[in-house]
Amino acid sequence: MRPVIDLNADVGEGFGRWTLGDDDALLDVVTSANVACGFHAGDPSIMRRVCARAVERGVRIGAQVGYRDLAGFGRREIDVGPVDLAADVLYQLGALHACATAAGGEVAYLRPHGALYNRVVWADAQAAAVVEAARAFDDSLPVLGLPDSALLRHAVRVGLPTVLEAFADRGYRADGTLVPRSEPGAVLTDEAEVTARVIRMVRERLVIADDGSDLWLSPRSICLHGDTPGAAELARRTRQALQDNGVRVEAFA
Amino acid sequence: MRPVIDLNADVGEGFGRWTLGDDDALLDVVTSANVACGFHAGDPSIMRRVCARAVERGVRIGAQVGYRDLAGFGRREIDVGPVDLAADVLYQLGALHACATAAGGEVAYLRPHGALYNRVVWADAQAAAVVEAARAFDDSLPVLGLPDSALLRHAVRVGLPTVLEAFADRGYRADGTLVPRSEPGAVLTDEAEVTARVIRMVRERLVIADDGSDLWLSPRSICLHGDTPGAAELARRTRQALQDNGVRVEAFA
Amino acid sequence: MRPVIDLNADVGEGFGRWTLGDDDALLDVVTSANVACGFHAGDPSIMRRVCARAVERGVRIGAQVGYRDLAGFGRREIDVGPVDLAADVLYQLGALHACATAAGGEVAYLRPHGALYNRVVWADAQAAAVVEAARAFDDSLPVLGLPDSALLRHAVRVGLPTVLEAFADRGYRADGTLVPRSEPGAVLTDEAEVTARVIRMVRERLVIADDGSDLWLSPRSICLHGDTPGAAELARRTRQALQDNGVRVEAFA
Amino acid sequence: MRPVIDLNADVGEGFGRWTLGDDDALLDVVTSANVACGFHAGDPSIMRRVCARAVERGVRIGAQVGYRDLAGFGRREIDVGPVDLAADVLYQLGALHACATAAGGEVAYLRPHGALYNRVVWADAQAAAVVEAARAFDDSLPVLGLPDSALLRHAVRVGLPTVLEAFADRGYRADGTLVPRSEPGAVLTDEAEVTARVIRMVRERLVIADDGSDLWLSPRSICLHGDTPGAAELARRTRQALQDNGVRVEAFA
Repeated sequence: MRPVIDLNADVGEGFGRWTLGDDDALLDVVTSANVACGFHAGDPSIMRRVCARAVERGVRIGAQVGYRDLAGFGRREIDVGPVDLAADVLYQLGALHACATAAGGEVAYLRPHGALYNRVVWADAQAAAVVEAARAFDDSLPVLGLPDSALLRHAVRVGLPTVLEAFADRGYRADGTLVPRSEPGAVLTDEAEVTARVIRMVRERLVIADDGSDLWLSPRSICLHGDTPGAAELARRTRQALQDNGVRVEAFA
Repeated sequence: MRPVIDLNADVGEGFGRWTLGDDDALLDVVTSANVACGFHAGDPSIMRRVCARAVERGVRIGAQVGYRDLAGFGRREIDVGPVDLAADVLYQLGALHACATAAGGEVAYLRPHGALYNRVVWADAQAAAVVEAARAFDDSLPVLGLPDSALLRHAVRVGLPTVLEAFADRGYRADGTLVPRSEPGAVLTDEAEVTARVIRMVRERLVIADDGSDLWLSPRSICLHGDTPGAAELARRTRQALQDNGVRVEAFA
Repeated sequence: MRPVIDLNADVGEGFGRWTLGDDDALLDVVTSANVACGFHAGDPSIMRRVCARAVERGVRIGAQVGYRDLAGFGRREIDVGPVDLAADVLYQLGALHACATAAGGEVAYLRPHGALYNRVVWADAQAAAVVEAARAFDDSLPVLGLPDSALLRHAVRVGLPTVLEAFADRGYRADGTLVPRSEPGAVLTDEAEVTARVIRMVRERLVIADDGSDLWLSPRSICLHGDTPGAAELARRTRQALQDNGVRVEAFA
Repeated sequence: MRPVIDLNADVGEGFGRWTLGDDDALLDVVTSANVACGFHAGDPSIMRRVCARAVERGVRIGAQVGYRDLAGFGRREIDVGPVDLAADVLYQLGALHACATAAGGEVAYLRPHGALYNRVVWADAQAAAVVEAARAFDDSLPVLGLPDSALLRHAVRVGLPTVLEAFADRGYRADGTLVPRSEPGAVLTDEAEVTARVIRMVRERLVIADDGSDLWLSPRSICLHGDTPGAAELARRTRQALQDNGVRVEAFA
């Protein structure tokens, strides 16, 4: 039986006059598009356009929810209380839902962005708030996240489907956490290395950690980055390499 | 057969730390609540709370959509292009939809707010944009607005149900337009006069215009104002007067 | 020699259509007005109006700087980096400077608001950032804050004047920190108790802590709260009680 | 006597994570930098950085003030009332003043942006509001704008210096107004044509209008555009062509 993997990337991260990344090129590669919902990036016009293009290509639409922080692009942790956070997430889900259904699609999953992504790895109250919003929106909405995160634990607790992801170009520690961006080895840029790692993650469910040991992973989705120069091209080659190595690239939702 | 009328008012118009009007008192009186959707007023937490209370009381939830202008409370006309305006309205509809359905309700109608309300009385491009968004969201969504407005004409054109409203406390001209707020007679404050006018509007479908002539109206809903001191009490008495005069107060949607 | 004290309070904390507190009543009582600068509350029109009224009454204008978070009223801690935070604070100082000088006044001091106030009590990087901005704006700008805070330490380090404040209605612990708002005894509401405490703070430089011990304080300013019902009246009586007890009420700057 | 001209361009028009144009390249060419002040583009960190680089290069700093509309990049006309508009402009002037003076510079002039620029060509109330703010900020602040505009008329009325500008790459009508962007001939892209026009504008004070007639202009500054691909290079060549033709390139303020 052929192994199967989903490829996800962030899209729709411009705002008004400002653009970021090459959405069209990424949408030609990925099977799942994390669409920014307007709180940290994205605006209603961009959301409609990206949803329409995702639907045209058969790409699944996910809600890239974040803190209310356009000035910080959602990358600054905010001590928002759980009731407000849940409301903020629900609001974003609904806004994207309207854009997606107007384009003939739907919101197929949720994936937090930036500082919220990192915070709900460990912070129970915020993780529970995100999950409460997801469940209130759709009690069978898949949640895409980091293995062993508080987010996925809370999703399991309330019966939401969970989807594990791995990062194509990030260094791992032996305990499964990511090498922080402030340290060497956090981000891999060599194309051959990245594609080889991704193929091994998917076929053997192993990745080499920064101490040289092998780490077991079991991703159903691989996160590709889209906002660096050459990112779309690297994403395209990663997909090609997976297919050349007998991997079926297919959305999870 | 008893005449029937809906009573609508704006609610949920606070933002964060700031409150406006007495939502709970108004929700005890109206049959339809125009809930602000976060672009000119309202925030996700307020929207969830107001939706929950509306559902508890059996009050219908409408989308009070407006320009993206918190600083101006949506009261300043903005030359937003039709594509962006439609996307902004769709986004707001979706956001409210998520809050309403999470509370066990639904978005039952759309009513523009403030400067957008006034603009779509005459401006075809913006009226068409609002209607496009409403139809994209739900192709049977009722649109509540001013008789003879471009908004309702466009709604009719695409097959959306339209609902006519009249204003309890605003002066009318003989041609059916409102006396501008900058002129005397724009706003009526005498309780007996307001309730008498409302009863006559509903029972006889007539209101006296500012030139003394009788004007024919055919409202299915009466708009009550909620953000002035004593507004909720005036609303309560208006409802009581209607019921005392044999009028059935009932939502249109 | 008569003891002297400044009274400060937050003013100008509305936004657009929304108001908060009774600015005019507070400006009749305080000697220093902490004017919100538009990032967490306040807008340019409010700032001009409040500055004009402060100048009319001889009240000193201080910059109530905060996180960029209107939705959270600046009460949510944000992990903004020091370079961005310093720029945000400098921007707010300049904006208020223009409003104050246009009214014939000036920015006489800086006082952080809300979550930023609490954070710079202990967080060196953010405290240093606020101080860098203050110094870049005016290298003799007084900084008003909590005794023993990182904020005042950094201000001293770069040669800015520091001004110590005490709270009229907050409970203290024996170590000089405030009783957290989540605990009993955090906020005092009995008028007689509040005024007696304030008089003792100013005349004897002592306040009773929550364990019954006496705590030494040396405030040059007392912070009065303005956004609760009856706040302006309590402020007025506190000022009267101070004057009746031989204290001179006078701004520090 | 050698003719003299200033070259101005918009800079600092990014926001947070988003960038726009090549500020560094433009700052190497222009003598006056119109720095966005945070209401339609720009943020405090960008403003500080751009001001520092302008000061290093001896480029004069101007306040590029606009409507409060990040989502629309200040390109949508807003019916903001004159009191609020004046306050918004004063706030922006003060914010930039703090950034400029912290960098060792100053705000040397004001130039409205986008829809506000176009509106104050004809709208008296908004033009008077912008001028009121400029005067309140600094009663000798030069105002840069379109000849015959309401803006400059009001500036003259209150005694502010006015500076006339012409556009390097925009088509003109015989009456001196610009060909609207929606019409052919609105924007010129041929480098040789653009530089030849600019040299003629400066040396002969003439430009050919779209009906073939000669139009008299008297610019003290030429506006170069910076946000299109190749814009900085075209700006550089325009400056070079001016200097090669005996024109002194020098700021007006």
